Amino acid sequence: MPINRATAEALITRYCKTWNEPDPKLRHQLLRTVLAEDGVYIDPTVHVVGVSALVDHISKVATKYPGSMIVRTSAVDLHHDVLRFSWHKQLANGQTLPESIDVCTINEDGKLRLIIGFFGPLISNSAAA
Amino acid sequence: MPINRATAEALITRYCKTWNEPDPKLRHQLLRTVLAEDGVYIDPTVHVVGVSALVDHISKVATKYPGSMIVRTSAVDLHHDVLRFSWHKQLANGQTLPESIDVCTINEDGKLRLIIGFFGPLISNSAAA
Repeated sequence: MPINRATAEALITRYCKTWNEPDPKLRHQLLRTVLAEDGVYIDPTVHVVGVSALVDHISKVATKYPGSMIVRTSAVDLHHDVLRFSWHKQLANGQTLPESIDVCTINEDGKLRLIIGFFGPLISNSAAA
Repeated sequence: MPINRATAEALITRYCKTWNEPDPKLRHQLLRTVLAEDGVYIDPTVHVVGVSALVDHISKVATKYPGSMIVRTSAVDLHHDVLRFSWHKQLANGQTLPESIDVCTINEDGKLRLIIGFFGPLISNSAAA
């Protein structure tokens, strides 16, 4: 059964919370409820498979940007079993990094199966030409 | 081997061309070089699997919007085996529909395996609240 909009919003709110959970054990507990056991996370910096691997990756990012937070900046745009949303990283000093997007597929259990992140804005064709 | 940027640009240029090819036979020939045989195309209006099904879907869209064209509006943003780009539909009267994005995964043969489309802009969190 396809996921509905409210459930998708709640799922992504929980997902973003895992990025902001400093304790890896608590983060793992939370992420297990969000990401499929064989779920894939891929962004320009990394390609990891599974809950534990993503928990570890988030620890590395937290070490690189201490005190930073992920802030979702859009509603969840859902159709079929796919969704997108935008977010930015807010640094400890209050600065924000460029707005980025995640695109996800959802499995039969209502968990994220694939998370694809892209950082920053697209380059317009005229600027790229 | 991961695809490189120039190859990804050429792939997506060819993919957009399939949307603008009015002859279903020629479109099928072209799309076979772009989309995996079991490739999935999913946007807010449709979920189809395979080259023939997408050829047919494009025919339906062409009937709905006669004389329209797909115009790519961004460079291809590639990392690992995933990419995104933006585009809009230009109607026969010159009007354009809202800018949309496609996010794709690429298989080992360098063809598109999954194409996920989202129409129009994301709704900001403040507007959604």
